Amino acid sequence: MEFFKNIEKIRYEGPKSDNPLAFKFYNPDEVVGNKTMKEHLRFSMSYWHTMCGEGSDMFGRGTVDKSFGGNDKLEVFKNKAYAAFELMDKLGLEYFCFHDRDIAPEFDNLKETNRALDEIVSLMKDLMKQYDKKVLWGTANLFSHPRYMHGAGTSPYADVFAFAGAQIKKALDITHELGGQGYVFWGGREGYETLLNTDMGLELDNMARLMRMAVDYAKKIGFEGDFYIEPKPKEPTKHQYDFDVATVISFLRKYGLDKYFKMNIEANHATLAGHTFQHELRVARVNGVFGSIDANQGDLLLGWDTDQFPTNVYETAMCMYEVLKAGGFTKGGLNFDAKTRRSSNKPEDIFYSYIAGMDAFALGLKIANKIIEDGRIDKFIENRYSSYTYGIGKEIVSGNVSLEDLEKYALELGEVKELESARQEYLENIINSIMFNL
Amino acid sequence: MEFFKNIEKIRYEGPKSDNPLAFKFYNPDEVVGNKTMKEHLRFSMSYWHTMCGEGSDMFGRGTVDKSFGGNDKLEVFKNKAYAAFELMDKLGLEYFCFHDRDIAPEFDNLKETNRALDEIVSLMKDLMKQYDKKVLWGTANLFSHPRYMHGAGTSPYADVFAFAGAQIKKALDITHELGGQGYVFWGGREGYETLLNTDMGLELDNMARLMRMAVDYAKKIGFEGDFYIEPKPKEPTKHQYDFDVATVISFLRKYGLDKYFKMNIEANHATLAGHTFQHELRVARVNGVFGSIDANQGDLLLGWDTDQFPTNVYETAMCMYEVLKAGGFTKGGLNFDAKTRRSSNKPEDIFYSYIAGMDAFALGLKIANKIIEDGRIDKFIENRYSSYTYGIGKEIVSGNVSLEDLEKYALELGEVKELESARQEYLENIINSIMFNL
Amino acid sequence: MEFFKNIEKIRYEGPKSDNPLAFKFYNPDEVVGNKTMKEHLRFSMSYWHTMCGEGSDMFGRGTVDKSFGGNDKLEVFKNKAYAAFELMDKLGLEYFCFHDRDIAPEFDNLKETNRALDEIVSLMKDLMKQYDKKVLWGTANLFSHPRYMHGAGTSPYADVFAFAGAQIKKALDITHELGGQGYVFWGGREGYETLLNTDMGLELDNMARLMRMAVDYAKKIGFEGDFYIEPKPKEPTKHQYDFDVATVISFLRKYGLDKYFKMNIEANHATLAGHTFQHELRVARVNGVFGSIDANQGDLLLGWDTDQFPTNVYETAMCMYEVLKAGGFTKGGLNFDAKTRRSSNKPEDIFYSYIAGMDAFALGLKIANKIIEDGRIDKFIENRYSSYTYGIGKEIVSGNVSLEDLEKYALELGEVKELESARQEYLENIINSIMFNL
Amino acid sequence: MEFFKNIEKIRYEGPKSDNPLAFKFYNPDEVVGNKTMKEHLRFSMSYWHTMCGEGSDMFGRGTVDKSFGGNDKLEVFKNKAYAAFELMDKLGLEYFCFHDRDIAPEFDNLKETNRALDEIVSLMKDLMKQYDKKVLWGTANLFSHPRYMHGAGTSPYADVFAFAGAQIKKALDITHELGGQGYVFWGGREGYETLLNTDMGLELDNMARLMRMAVDYAKKIGFEGDFYIEPKPKEPTKHQYDFDVATVISFLRKYGLDKYFKMNIEANHATLAGHTFQHELRVARVNGVFGSIDANQGDLLLGWDTDQFPTNVYETAMCMYEVLKAGGFTKGGLNFDAKTRRSSNKPEDIFYSYIAGMDAFALGLKIANKIIEDGRIDKFIENRYSSYTYGIGKEIVSGNVSLEDLEKYALELGEVKELESARQEYLENIINSIMFNL
Repeated sequence: MEFFKNIEKIRYEGPKSDNPLAFKFYNPDEVVGNKTMKEHLRFSMSYWHTMCGEGSDMFGRGTVDKSFGGNDKLEVFKNKAYAAFELMDKLGLEYFCFHDRDIAPEFDNLKETNRALDEIVSLMKDLMKQYDKKVLWGTANLFSHPRYMHGAGTSPYADVFAFAGAQIKKALDITHELGGQGYVFWGGREGYETLLNTDMGLELDNMARLMRMAVDYAKKIGFEGDFYIEPKPKEPTKHQYDFDVATVISFLRKYGLDKYFKMNIEANHATLAGHTFQHELRVARVNGVFGSIDANQGDLLLGWDTDQFPTNVYETAMCMYEVLKAGGFTKGGLNFDAKTRRSSNKPEDIFYSYIAGMDAFALGLKIANKIIEDGRIDKFIENRYSSYTYGIGKEIVSGNVSLEDLEKYALELGEVKELESARQEYLENIINSIMFNL
Repeated sequence: MEFFKNIEKIRYEGPKSDNPLAFKFYNPDEVVGNKTMKEHLRFSMSYWHTMCGEGSDMFGRGTVDKSFGGNDKLEVFKNKAYAAFELMDKLGLEYFCFHDRDIAPEFDNLKETNRALDEIVSLMKDLMKQYDKKVLWGTANLFSHPRYMHGAGTSPYADVFAFAGAQIKKALDITHELGGQGYVFWGGREGYETLLNTDMGLELDNMARLMRMAVDYAKKIGFEGDFYIEPKPKEPTKHQYDFDVATVISFLRKYGLDKYFKMNIEANHATLAGHTFQHELRVARVNGVFGSIDANQGDLLLGWDTDQFPTNVYETAMCMYEVLKAGGFTKGGLNFDAKTRRSSNKPEDIFYSYIAGMDAFALGLKIANKIIEDGRIDKFIENRYSSYTYGIGKEIVSGNVSLEDLEKYALELGEVKELESARQEYLENIINSIMFNL
Repeated sequence: MEFFKNIEKIRYEGPKSDNPLAFKFYNPDEVVGNKTMKEHLRFSMSYWHTMCGEGSDMFGRGTVDKSFGGNDKLEVFKNKAYAAFELMDKLGLEYFCFHDRDIAPEFDNLKETNRALDEIVSLMKDLMKQYDKKVLWGTANLFSHPRYMHGAGTSPYADVFAFAGAQIKKALDITHELGGQGYVFWGGREGYETLLNTDMGLELDNMARLMRMAVDYAKKIGFEGDFYIEPKPKEPTKHQYDFDVATVISFLRKYGLDKYFKMNIEANHATLAGHTFQHELRVARVNGVFGSIDANQGDLLLGWDTDQFPTNVYETAMCMYEVLKAGGFTKGGLNFDAKTRRSSNKPEDIFYSYIAGMDAFALGLKIANKIIEDGRIDKFIENRYSSYTYGIGKEIVSGNVSLEDLEKYALELGEVKELESARQEYLENIINSIMFNL
Repeated sequence: MEFFKNIEKIRYEGPKSDNPLAFKFYNPDEVVGNKTMKEHLRFSMSYWHTMCGEGSDMFGRGTVDKSFGGNDKLEVFKNKAYAAFELMDKLGLEYFCFHDRDIAPEFDNLKETNRALDEIVSLMKDLMKQYDKKVLWGTANLFSHPRYMHGAGTSPYADVFAFAGAQIKKALDITHELGGQGYVFWGGREGYETLLNTDMGLELDNMARLMRMAVDYAKKIGFEGDFYIEPKPKEPTKHQYDFDVATVISFLRKYGLDKYFKMNIEANHATLAGHTFQHELRVARVNGVFGSIDANQGDLLLGWDTDQFPTNVYETAMCMYEVLKAGGFTKGGLNFDAKTRRSSNKPEDIFYSYIAGMDAFALGLKIANKIIEDGRIDKFIENRYSSYTYGIGKEIVSGNVSLEDLEKYALELGEVKELESARQEYLENIINSIMFNL
């Protein structure tokens, strides 16, 4: 059974190629800095968008059929699996990410649902071996079913909390079973629609309780993957508790959970929170919680999650700059949490989309590496802060001065001498010079 | 010397009055719940906008003259002081807030600047006694002078850090001298314009160092007022580190400063960060750091700080609801960080503006108090979460269950029974019923 | 067959009532100004949200079932009709609005679809007579079916254009048959996702061609209702051609269509375009194209169409101020293009929602009427512009002066004398004084 | 007198150069398509930002001194002129744009102000000849002076209207005198702060009257330059009447002014209105009113006009694509309405900034030209709409069909056959392939 007929393995043909089904910039074995592109980028397929997303939006139904010829619930999901591995194989994607409900159907009863899940997991294990593919991370879908309409870990209803816990346990079990390198919490319903009906304090306490249980259970079963939280400020709810990286860190510190979690940062979620993608990566890096990335791009003039395939090379370059500065991925990677546009309704559009994203990140990696090798940017920053390496600056950093010392120093100085320029335009021009002279 | 001639003390005349120079709703001695309006609301004048703001904007120069007839730098600021107390007296404002540079002029040399400051502080002390007025909080202006163009505590230049420290010390001294009940940090330049030139890690460390020094110094001089941080996400810089309440808490927890700081929350800053005013108050309350309020309102269709006088009673009502739920103000209050519009260019406009704001908060207080006395909203919330008071919910809250327990429970349950409604529209209608039936 | 059991006719009980299933402010027969509330407000049910919307969002499936016990496609829609009239009757809604596909199901073939539509229209005609209900406006759904994924009148495919035309013809036929007082164009797919694949010029020309055909056909069948265009800037597409009122007017003027169309203005669409609701109403009024209103409210901190039931009385008051100033509705009305929240999942929530919206507009009407009767606002404006009624101002308005005349005048004047204040805060306080003293 | 010492003429050194004071991509005499870069791009200096902007913002005073050693008002402006031409010469800028008040000081009296203006204009005429520089467009500053706080042409005060007229007359006189190729209206104060005090109808009528007078006067003096309107949606006011291109066209059509005006489109104004830069250019092109460009870039995460120098090559490429498609500039050009960052406080930063902007547009031009020569994008669009060149599509375009014809056609068709893909990702990948393979 071949699902993507007429499409062969996508190969690197270089920038001069006009074959739309070839990579122009992503050359998996090309060495950039100290590793191959493939090792750096750790690309992952998002099971939900790629295998399940049918192109519906709030004003229209689906434009593509993702049943892959299946005739009943279970067959549909089995065929999804076969198609998924064919796709990963043809695109050269090494990893995939999934929610429990992406890979297997839900039934009226948890027992039956779990049984179907086990059956599919067994199939996937075989396919993973056959195709040499890995799980970047797994997670539980705690937002689509109506039972989660008021939240999962933050639901006002204890039965719902219990169900969420049960789903997380099972999702951890199967992620572990499949050798997953991470587990993600995305709290799409963990938030509120109106404060008029919300006990925020209890909801946050409960959310922490659920995460604590997950950490404990992972230890028990020997799961050694990373735990990630994926911030998103809003949508579907009016406000989500995991607003942005800083907010999540604040939460984790409050409940003593900070040493157990890293961040899974999504470009489009960053911008919905009013931040650049790079900002969120930097905040994570500075706080030691950089983990994994949901690679996509949003539209800053639109107020919802468009989950577009990333094609803006400025964004991919600055992303990879932060990744390289953080020492590269360890257990994380670049998961394309991106969907082909609703009007890109043909199977080949999925390929064009992944090619576009992979090429954009290959360019981003090369540019980021060249920025670092070039050294002008980093050197500029080092010089800029050099006054903290001697004299009063050194004293400040070492913690040896008080406000009174500073006043004494300042009174003697009388006034600060004219400051250096921050040179933004000069630096921006360096970036363009590097980008357009690869 | 009378600066606001033809304007008498503003009195309460009740809702039927059409005298624009009278309060319609703010009746200082009227008891609401357990306190008088005046005790609840602790209104404060913002010295900067009211005594210094001349109506310039990015595209036009000032439209009013705030030199109050002064002929030299020092006389201007003395006259500002006289005028300020006349104004507070006529409006019945009990408190005021100030930056060091609002109340006295800056000279080329810190020594001279501090000398002038001392002279004015001495005058203000007299005026405070004479008029029976108090300082809600003081602060240092670490953003207007070009020396702070790259930041103050986060400047790349140690001399600037030292100057910032010297200014904070002096501002703490005079706030203490004037019996101030609080001290605010607003980091208008503590952020970045571009990450291309920014060492975020060092900047945050330094910002923490400066705050630590302030805490230490306050202890030393016996200052027992509250320390506040006032979050603002952006403007003037592209990104400010004190983005919102959650971000600030994250920062404070990282550096072990969380027990020394509360929040000064501004309505317009909340909305610039993508939050409602009430959200920021709630987050502060839930995290035990509710402190004081900069009362104003923004325009959600505009992307900058408009600092309008608050007139939206929905906003003031939900604000006061959070304040009452937090137990009311202790050392904080409602500081009108608001400016009359650029085209409201007459002295009486300042009075109209304060009256508008004070009336709006009087209404807000009455409504909030009535919401609580009515009890329907609070009771609804209590019932909504009641499943956590018995059975599996109680177990969850007490920390006695694991994911395995939850799975067992959920498997037995099979599926959650149909959930209750969150009743948003029902609750919103209750609010309107209360508001328009005072 | 009763679908909303246990709910009786909603009656006016006045502001002191705590019966959630009673009007507190909407008293249909109460006279406000020159008409009863009912005559002023012309409330309408939106068939799509109320009878069809099941609470799905981009991250979760429906939370309510709107099949009303129907067992096949046609029975479902018949039952929707029975339920709709029961609901309108119980809520005292005089009008309803619909898309062709809200009231009858779509089949694989246009002929069959139209046949089903005729059958339901016949039923509705009977029900309208029985319950004494009217159609405010009808329209065709040209956005949900995948055939419209690239646009309807602006589709790159002529067959799609033809289908759109066929649907509009039929929708006009049935709107006319049901005595509809208007017909709406909402171009949810008339826009683009990316300019890279878009011939904007041809698309706009075609959109105009389609509207011209509709106007011609209406004339032919004797339809004398109003034609409306409903602006919306984005969502579902990245950019929609009917961005806002001004853009639509520009389009209509280009193609000579301006005398055939008025505006159907939606609050939430106004804010998505960066305008206040009142602004869009005012622009329509000033350009003589005020028509009808889609009454709802958005969340200015969210970037998508939340279609909430309107409860903000500031908004409803300023809306009704514009409506009254425009002389009131003629063929238009207040259609609640609003949906109960996804988590308001009980039948009674629909009632709470309509009650909330109707009460909010009743308050808005009373306040708007009082603002006008009070006269202070209108008088202030009249005085403010009085310099155009004499002297140079009168000359300017009469068109008798040239730039040279103005230069001569200005040179003599030397400088403008100090200007009056615009008094924003004074005016805002008047609004509050009126609102909270009904 | 040399103002920018140590800076020599900026030369093209090619992409490998690391000389920050050299062009890497802008090679004035390089032929791209049918013209040299210089002929295509028609770069212009903005007099206001470059010669007058001192780096103040709403929270801080200036960081640079632009008095250029002048000791009195007039000498300052004379020195600005000398410095301006030195700068244009060194940067190879052929054009400049100015407001009346940028080039000469304002005095208390219009007569005196005009006299000073004449003196400077005479000096500039000499300098223009000496340096071979030209005026792209002139304009009048009708927004900075307090007299314009309520508007200029839309002021409620007739005397202000008269002053605005007098200023426009004089600005037209001097623009004509200096051989200017255009005249711009930017209505920074033509809007409102609140509808509570605004007669929108009269204001719009008056704005049209003023523009009509300008058109008439230009004819009289023989000024044959283009008239432009520069849309901006907000800032400084809450709402400006010239919101975006479509709104302005609507206004012009209403008052019969459409044949006299083209658009001056600014990137940052486009995004503040919720549009892409390319969108505004496209709308202008499709409506035949493309004129000139204010080249800069904003920050989509900030809600105010940041007026950054343009460095995003995606933006400059799509801009130049629209310019080339419009047939290139006739009398318009690329005016850098951009300011060096406040913290770029050194004279060389102005050079770095212009170099960054000119290089970015040179890249944009080359890419745009290559997109067109490559042909894949344009061909894709042509094919996509080909169904309008035959059969029912051709009939639709020719205006020969009615809704009845379309219904007949659609009924026979039954359903539309499966549609083609819109291929967004495929097209985006083509753009990257071209950009990174110059």
